[in-house]
Amino acid sequence: MTTQAGTEGAFGGPPRGPDPRAARSRAAALAAAQELLVEQGWSAVTHVAVAARSGIGRTTLYRHWPDAASLIHDAIAQRMSVVRPEPTGELRGDLVRELDALRVLLHEPVSERGMRAVIERAAVDPAFTKLKEALYRAGSDGFRSILEGARKRGELVADLDIDLAIDQLAGPLMFRRLLAERTFSTEYVHAVVESFLRLYATQGSGR
Amino acid sequence: MTTQAGTEGAFGGPPRGPDPRAARSRAAALAAAQELLVEQGWSAVTHVAVAARSGIGRTTLYRHWPDAASLIHDAIAQRMSVVRPEPTGELRGDLVRELDALRVLLHEPVSERGMRAVIERAAVDPAFTKLKEALYRAGSDGFRSILEGARKRGELVADLDIDLAIDQLAGPLMFRRLLAERTFSTEYVHAVVESFLRLYATQGSGR
Repeated sequence: MTTQAGTEGAFGGPPRGPDPRAARSRAAALAAAQELLVEQGWSAVTHVAVAARSGIGRTTLYRHWPDAASLIHDAIAQRMSVVRPEPTGELRGDLVRELDALRVLLHEPVSERGMRAVIERAAVDPAFTKLKEALYRAGSDGFRSILEGARKRGELVADLDIDLAIDQLAGPLMFRRLLAERTFSTEYVHAVVESFLRLYATQGSGR
Repeated sequence: MTTQAGTEGAFGGPPRGPDPRAARSRAAALAAAQELLVEQGWSAVTHVAVAARSGIGRTTLYRHWPDAASLIHDAIAQRMSVVRPEPTGELRGDLVRELDALRVLLHEPVSERGMRAVIERAAVDPAFTKLKEALYRAGSDGFRSILEGARKRGELVADLDIDLAIDQLAGPLMFRRLLAERTFSTEYVHAVVESFLRLYATQGSGR
C-alpha cells in the first residue's frame, strides 16, 4: 500500500502504466536516494545529490518528485512496505513471525534509517506524518488481528488491553535497536513473546 | 552530566566560571535553538536562524558553537539532563518514579523533539552518537541499579535478564509516544510496572 502510494506519487497519469524507461530511471534514482539516506540521513537526500549519484537528470527528478520530501518519502516507502505473514491461528507462532518481520525491518539498513527518519520528521513535516501513520497502521494491524483472534478463541485473557499489548511486543525491539543501538536475533523475539504469553495467555491456550 | 558536557563545550576556559554577560547570551541562544527544534526539527537550528531569533550576534554564536551540531547538542543536552530520583529500596515505587521521569521527558516538547533528533542523527553524526550514548546510559543506569538492588534483596528472580528487563520497562513508553504518537499519564506507567512485577517479582517481594 505504501509502495503504491509512492508509485502514484511519481506517475499520476496513464492507466496503461509507466513506460519502461521512466521506470528504470525512477528505480535508479530511488536506489541512489536510499544509499544517501543510509550514509548521511534524510537531510542528504537532495535532488542535486541524487542526480550526481544516479546520473539521472535533475529535470527528470523534479518531474517525478517536485520536492525532496516526496523523494525521501518514496525511497523509504519502497523498502518499508513488507509482505505481512498471514496469521495461521497458532498464537505463539503467529506472534513470533509478526515480531520477527519487525526485527528484520530494524536490521535492514534502508528501513532502519527510514524508521529513524520518520520518527524525527513526522513531528514537523506532514509528508512524513502520513507515511509514519501508514507504517504504524501496517505494523500494528497485524498484531491487532492476531491478538483479537486469540482473545476470541479464549487463548488470551478476555480483558486484554490490545494497545498496551502491542506496546509490550514491539516496544522492546524498537528500544533495543533504535535507543540502545544493539542488534539481536530471533532468539530475542522468542524471549519477548514468551514474556507476553506468561502475562496474558489463559489455561485454555494449553500452556 | 550531559549539561556539564554541554557547558564545557561552550566555555572551555576560566576556572572562575563564565562571565554573566556571556552566560546570558548563551542562555538566550539556547532558548531560541530549542524553539526552532520544537517548531521545525534539528535541521532548522542554524547559526543564522538562532541569531535572527535571539538577537545574539552570529560571531558570538560561532565563538560558543563552532558548528550547528554543537549548538543543537547543547540545546538538547540542557533540557534532557534530568535529576534522577534516588532509589529508596522500595521496588515498585522506585520503578514507577524512574519510569515516570522518562514519561515526563517524552511529554516535554524540547526533550521529546531532542529524543527524535538523536534517534535520527546518532546513526550518521558522531556529535549526536556521543550525546545519545550519554542519555541512554543516564536512563538505563537508573533502572540497572534499581533492578540489581532488588535482585540482591531477593525481590526479583535470580536469573533476571536486566537488559531485557530495561527494554520491557522503557520500550513500551518509547513506542507509544514516538511511534504511535500518543500521550499518556502515570496510570500507563503503573500498568507497565505491574506487568513487569508479575513477570519477575518473587514471593519474597511480598506480592
